Amino acid sequence: MHPFGRFPELSLKDLARVAAVRALLDAGIGVKDVQAAYSANAMAGMLQGQEMVRGQTVLREIGIDRIPVVNVENACASGSSALAQAVLTVRAGAADVVLAVGFEKMYVSDLAVTLDALESAADLDVVRGLGIQFTAIYAMRLRRLIAEGALTMDDIVDVAVKSHANGALNPYAQHRKEVTAGQVRDARRIADPLTLLMCSSICDGAAAAVVARRGALESRGPTVRVAASRGASGFTARPEGESSLSTMCAEGAYEQAGLGPSDIDLAEVHDAMAPAELLYAEQLGFCAPGEVSSFFRAGSTRIDGSLPMNTSGGLSSRGHPVGATGLAQIAELVWQLRGEAGARQVERPRIALAQNSGGWLEGESAAANVHILERLEPWDWNRP
Amino acid sequence: MHPFGRFPELSLKDLARVAAVRALLDAGIGVKDVQAAYSANAMAGMLQGQEMVRGQTVLREIGIDRIPVVNVENACASGSSALAQAVLTVRAGAADVVLAVGFEKMYVSDLAVTLDALESAADLDVVRGLGIQFTAIYAMRLRRLIAEGALTMDDIVDVAVKSHANGALNPYAQHRKEVTAGQVRDARRIADPLTLLMCSSICDGAAAAVVARRGALESRGPTVRVAASRGASGFTARPEGESSLSTMCAEGAYEQAGLGPSDIDLAEVHDAMAPAELLYAEQLGFCAPGEVSSFFRAGSTRIDGSLPMNTSGGLSSRGHPVGATGLAQIAELVWQLRGEAGARQVERPRIALAQNSGGWLEGESAAANVHILERLEPWDWNRP
Repeated sequence: MHPFGRFPELSLKDLARVAAVRALLDAGIGVKDVQAAYSANAMAGMLQGQEMVRGQTVLREIGIDRIPVVNVENACASGSSALAQAVLTVRAGAADVVLAVGFEKMYVSDLAVTLDALESAADLDVVRGLGIQFTAIYAMRLRRLIAEGALTMDDIVDVAVKSHANGALNPYAQHRKEVTAGQVRDARRIADPLTLLMCSSICDGAAAAVVARRGALESRGPTVRVAASRGASGFTARPEGESSLSTMCAEGAYEQAGLGPSDIDLAEVHDAMAPAELLYAEQLGFCAPGEVSSFFRAGSTRIDGSLPMNTSGGLSSRGHPVGATGLAQIAELVWQLRGEAGARQVERPRIALAQNSGGWLEGESAAANVHILERLEPWDWNRP
Repeated sequence: MHPFGRFPELSLKDLARVAAVRALLDAGIGVKDVQAAYSANAMAGMLQGQEMVRGQTVLREIGIDRIPVVNVENACASGSSALAQAVLTVRAGAADVVLAVGFEKMYVSDLAVTLDALESAADLDVVRGLGIQFTAIYAMRLRRLIAEGALTMDDIVDVAVKSHANGALNPYAQHRKEVTAGQVRDARRIADPLTLLMCSSICDGAAAAVVARRGALESRGPTVRVAASRGASGFTARPEGESSLSTMCAEGAYEQAGLGPSDIDLAEVHDAMAPAELLYAEQLGFCAPGEVSSFFRAGSTRIDGSLPMNTSGGLSSRGHPVGATGLAQIAELVWQLRGEAGARQVERPRIALAQNSGGWLEGESAAANVHILERLEPWDWNRP
């Protein structure tokens, strides 16, 4: 990863290059070992004027040449979509070693342009007519849950406190300061009940991952396997009783991995607004329907809990540079599975889940991906 | 396909929807049969303000829901890159039936924005410093070949005449009028030696293809198999003697298909400027090095020649709505292989090659793809 934050002195390419090179170094390979590459970016067309060949402009500079490079874009799920394509490419036997790199530079001289670009994560014909945007959509979902008694205002405040506490432990995070419940509650109201300290911010950053056929690379410590990769786009609001898009992806991923929610040791989920973590805990099957409040209140999702969520700080504290987020989730989970997560290390995790979603089209995400990662070696094999 | 041309009354989504639905009808399937989809578009972020979820906004409107949809962007090679991802997806066993749809609407109220967006097919940090653009790059290559005696001015004029003659036979083409050599030669000079009638134009349009695992769909006439799919991105100008990116892709594709250039019965190549067809004839191995002029002069590339090229009219006459072009090449070849190409039908072709390239980075294409298609049934099986 390149750290997430505000980097006026660095170009979009600078950020991406750092993440890509670090991923290669981490894998112990050189650029000549990479056989295909996917780039994830969601906004450079509108923000930097660089459409069409975004990934190539980055990868050229690190010396990648004459391999297939494909630019992938799927709103806030761009990073995980690039990862999914990398996994497909290895699975199809088309390449043994594939690089996926996600990057975004949202701080530009005119932030109104950034807001316009963010709006295009929905169908413009729809949102411009409705006059609606993302924060409002999250807020309405939360208000309904509060009205139904499924969540309390304390829950959605405290989940933001937890997010910032984790972010404070993550050197790659945009927001690295603990906050109190009072500070969260009293922060500027963005869309009732959301306050500023619950929301992800405009952010620069990059993240990358190397996906390889098993056995193609020399082992450099614990091996992390992609046990499942499931994606979907959903356009219409679900009738009552029908599962959400992320639930559908998770169910597909559990089936693919031969696992269930109770096997998951930690998860990174798409908390573009911190309280969304609570929605996803239920949608991913981590707690029974209607019991997310008690699940959270029991401390389950803390770093020392039974199912730590967003140990990185999540989107709301680690930051959410759109094209990079899905791969930053993967970086966090790989570090955790290897025991390299420092002060935020979960105790000996073996199975991790990443849920990344993006865009909005009439009540559902425009894209969602769930990946399940598995540490293959037992913990005492590498670090007694 | 949706016809290529200028359609002020139609939105980008209108164009794409027509192509997608026609591909489904052609395959004899409904939206519920599609298990994954790829969208190819290169400019909508800058031209329509619709970044991030371009494909979803289209596919939602035809009723596609809850399948993986991924937006792919690779400059002028976006369409073939989407096709390549569709092929990978089937090959990986992740889906049996995949839709790829490419679309572009380049006519907008301010055509200066279209030119800016086209510029972003190269690394802006490079082209803005050099003050160079695509037409000039093609012109310099051609001037060198003329200076070396490999091509004559007559060759590059007459290949444009052939392109327009083919376009005149294609109801989907943007330019459907025959032109004379004198008209080509005397047309407005764009970048010496290129004149207006040699160049592809600003264009709206869409094209789509359905890729399926063999046996997954009921046969509705001759089956066309994807015999090879090879792509690459190349960033650095080649040293003398080293093959071009399209040559490299073609060699890979020939190997994958177990075929050679002499097996190819017809080809669609990326003639963004009509004379580029001559460059590609040599790069794809259709004629010996240095012999492209005599190959062309012998009429080999005409519809009734030994290796018809760009029977559709190619980019320069069929039109080049950037994201759609790679899939329009596939549509033409599939029609030809099935015997459905009407007045421009080649006599009983069995093997066809599509070469699509895009972008420019310091002397090479930012992306290129070569696909080889094969008609499986003998010709007399279906149409005696």
